Amino acid sequence: MDNNTPDSRRQMVLGLLLSPASSHIAGWRHPDAISNAGWDFPDVLRIARSAEDAKLDFVFLADELCAPEGDAETLSRDPVIYRFEPLTLLAALSVSTDRIGLVATQTTTYNEPYHIARKFASLDHLSHGRTGWNLVTSYVEAEARNFSRSEHLRNADRYERAEEFLRVAAGLWDSWDDDAFVLDKDSGRYFDPDKMHILNHHGQHFSVRGPLNVLRPPQGRPVQVQAGSSEAGKNLAARYAEVAFTAQNNLESALAFTRDLKDRTEKAGRPRDSIRVIAGVQAIIGDTVEDAQAKYRQMQELIHPEVGLARLSQLLGFDVTTLPLDGPLPDIIPETESYKSRQQLIVETARRENLTLRELYRRVVGAYGHRVVIGTPESVADELAAWFEAGAVDGYILSPTYLPAGFDEFRNRVLPLLRERGLFRTEYTGSTFRDHLALARPARGEFQAEEQATAAV
Amino acid sequence: MDNNTPDSRRQMVLGLLLSPASSHIAGWRHPDAISNAGWDFPDVLRIARSAEDAKLDFVFLADELCAPEGDAETLSRDPVIYRFEPLTLLAALSVSTDRIGLVATQTTTYNEPYHIARKFASLDHLSHGRTGWNLVTSYVEAEARNFSRSEHLRNADRYERAEEFLRVAAGLWDSWDDDAFVLDKDSGRYFDPDKMHILNHHGQHFSVRGPLNVLRPPQGRPVQVQAGSSEAGKNLAARYAEVAFTAQNNLESALAFTRDLKDRTEKAGRPRDSIRVIAGVQAIIGDTVEDAQAKYRQMQELIHPEVGLARLSQLLGFDVTTLPLDGPLPDIIPETESYKSRQQLIVETARRENLTLRELYRRVVGAYGHRVVIGTPESVADELAAWFEAGAVDGYILSPTYLPAGFDEFRNRVLPLLRERGLFRTEYTGSTFRDHLALARPARGEFQAEEQATAAV
Repeated sequence: MDNNTPDSRRQMVLGLLLSPASSHIAGWRHPDAISNAGWDFPDVLRIARSAEDAKLDFVFLADELCAPEGDAETLSRDPVIYRFEPLTLLAALSVSTDRIGLVATQTTTYNEPYHIARKFASLDHLSHGRTGWNLVTSYVEAEARNFSRSEHLRNADRYERAEEFLRVAAGLWDSWDDDAFVLDKDSGRYFDPDKMHILNHHGQHFSVRGPLNVLRPPQGRPVQVQAGSSEAGKNLAARYAEVAFTAQNNLESALAFTRDLKDRTEKAGRPRDSIRVIAGVQAIIGDTVEDAQAKYRQMQELIHPEVGLARLSQLLGFDVTTLPLDGPLPDIIPETESYKSRQQLIVETARRENLTLRELYRRVVGAYGHRVVIGTPESVADELAAWFEAGAVDGYILSPTYLPAGFDEFRNRVLPLLRERGLFRTEYTGSTFRDHLALARPARGEFQAEEQATAAV
Repeated sequence: MDNNTPDSRRQMVLGLLLSPASSHIAGWRHPDAISNAGWDFPDVLRIARSAEDAKLDFVFLADELCAPEGDAETLSRDPVIYRFEPLTLLAALSVSTDRIGLVATQTTTYNEPYHIARKFASLDHLSHGRTGWNLVTSYVEAEARNFSRSEHLRNADRYERAEEFLRVAAGLWDSWDDDAFVLDKDSGRYFDPDKMHILNHHGQHFSVRGPLNVLRPPQGRPVQVQAGSSEAGKNLAARYAEVAFTAQNNLESALAFTRDLKDRTEKAGRPRDSIRVIAGVQAIIGDTVEDAQAKYRQMQELIHPEVGLARLSQLLGFDVTTLPLDGPLPDIIPETESYKSRQQLIVETARRENLTLRELYRRVVGAYGHRVVIGTPESVADELAAWFEAGAVDGYILSPTYLPAGFDEFRNRVLPLLRERGLFRTEYTGSTFRDHLALARPARGEFQAEEQATAAV
């Protein structure tokens, strides 16, 4: 209950992206980096425990259900090959850490709600209430080809499916009252039959009877996390998300995004502070600003141009690999459906700052489109505090350029400054991820009651 | 390499069913039992480590994708509510144990091959090569209702899907050569593009492009385990399984089953010893035979009649809950498609021994149809050795009536006798599950080559 008690200042939510190869596209090439992208569980665990020692709110596992497609020669320079599938890795971390929140990405487009509800319930038991589900709807079209679909679903259809998926999952987590299981050896009564609730869902995309064959999760439901900045994505977040991830590159647009999302949340009948907006940040820290900038240049130069253009094409939704490296984006931008909001952000940045393709890929590909903050520990702390205090964000996901040293630097040099300013906790005060975020544990049936109330409005 | 070296005697494969509530339907009611069916990970881990200390080949997680359906009052006396989903639990055990094999059940009927191949590959990395996949095709019709299907697939269709599923998974595990990842920081080369293999599968049930975004599993493939005694089930096992689970109640039928399965295996172009037949066993151990029999009666009397008849109905595939408890099975047995082979086994037992319904449910429901061996440590060891030495089985899955004490008894009193006779290992000699079973690590592409050879025959 760190955040909302009347006597304490509002504090930042801080998470760590735990996918070494996802944090910076060339991070693995840094001399100090674990080059194998965290293939060994002991490496991954050491980083997760370091985040826990630093009292971070959570570690986060990104995901895609495919390897990148394209020219093999180009792909062979791209480190985004994962060793561990997120739910299995999260289970391993659940029994190897004690306090930190554990968030995994799972798509609603190529999954079934019974599987997802069951696995997160199981993880919430294994971790004693520390899981969060980052719901995505799959923006990488290649995933379709691993799941027997000839083409990817349209954005609006994906979100319609996502909403029904999420409601089914919530219904399944409410299959049992918290005290349903009486385990009376003498009478042979295992559970109280009045405390079992059969969902019997029949909808547009799913028919699911229930009940779930896992007890109610310790947190009631895992913390609901969501990214996505399309209209449909923001509306879904406004209705259901408790943490919203976003990629924002300047204060003005971050303020506008957060204000808009909290307005939508209020309109959906939920308090503004029931959703926490968390932005991705890649911090490059030096003894001086010049030193930090030199470090940043060193990182960006490690991006192979082939990989840079291929990844930029993927982010933009159209091919730029054959265009001149030191020329601008074309005047006419092909329309794209699945990548619309992301494309718009990148094109705006390029036009505003008149960037060449090389400059553009170095800007957006390294950090996967997230904010880059370059400076001394003091200036980095200042910049993070400024957005937070302006209400542009409620916190950050740290996305160090390489691991483990990139996080150690932040932990040892920036975190103490944030603590001095009262902006981040010094100790955990609760035991569940909901406790860390000052989110109440939902009562059974609350979700369904809210649903009915919303539907009635 | 315990089993097949020329100088050592053939030794038993021994596994432990790690689902406290699945081992005996009333086991949770025993005064010494963990009544909550292993809800706490430390309990489950303690049992898995005990099996590892005893040098067992593997622990095994059963699974169903539903809670039982039926009258709530009856269900509320049935302990088959799981706390943990098998793949997440297996991941937690992977990083908490060192040597023992870890087998989880997953159905091919309500899953996608990309998910399953990826999760088992991830688990095989987390466990350093100790996983096995028990492939089932779902015999419980209620699962369909949790996966948006109005009715269950027919047996033959399920096995056709299973075979294609298994081939796709094997193709995905072969996405990368073992030495594909060169991680050259200087050149920026992450993997050797010639060592990536794209599956491009287009079949009857699945279209899956690949490659898998997980490296080749340490074991090449997880050990392939299968149960199922239908024609389609036995034919699939003969072509692909490395371990076959079976429920057998007398030596003669066990001998016939094993001979038949090994004949089919040979006919499918594989050596007879490339498949190990493992039977379920519930051992009830006493200081004297009378003492053991009293223990058994005590266990069987703990089965509530409502639960007994409901479970018997489920196993038979037709309703017997309204028939007189102390009368026989009806003369005319309704035909069933999904439960055919199981029904036949049970009806034969009832007719042969002229059992009432009460006697029948006490016989088959307690042990879920598996063999029950009741006696002194010596007589139990004799009975287990007799089947093994006759070639009726290659080993056993132990299914103690309750945990943890039920396994401790076997471990402390029967296992030393099997060791004295040279029938079971005293130490692990390898580190992977394949090592324990003396199965070779498959070379990449071997599966596909075998497939082509078989298709050509």
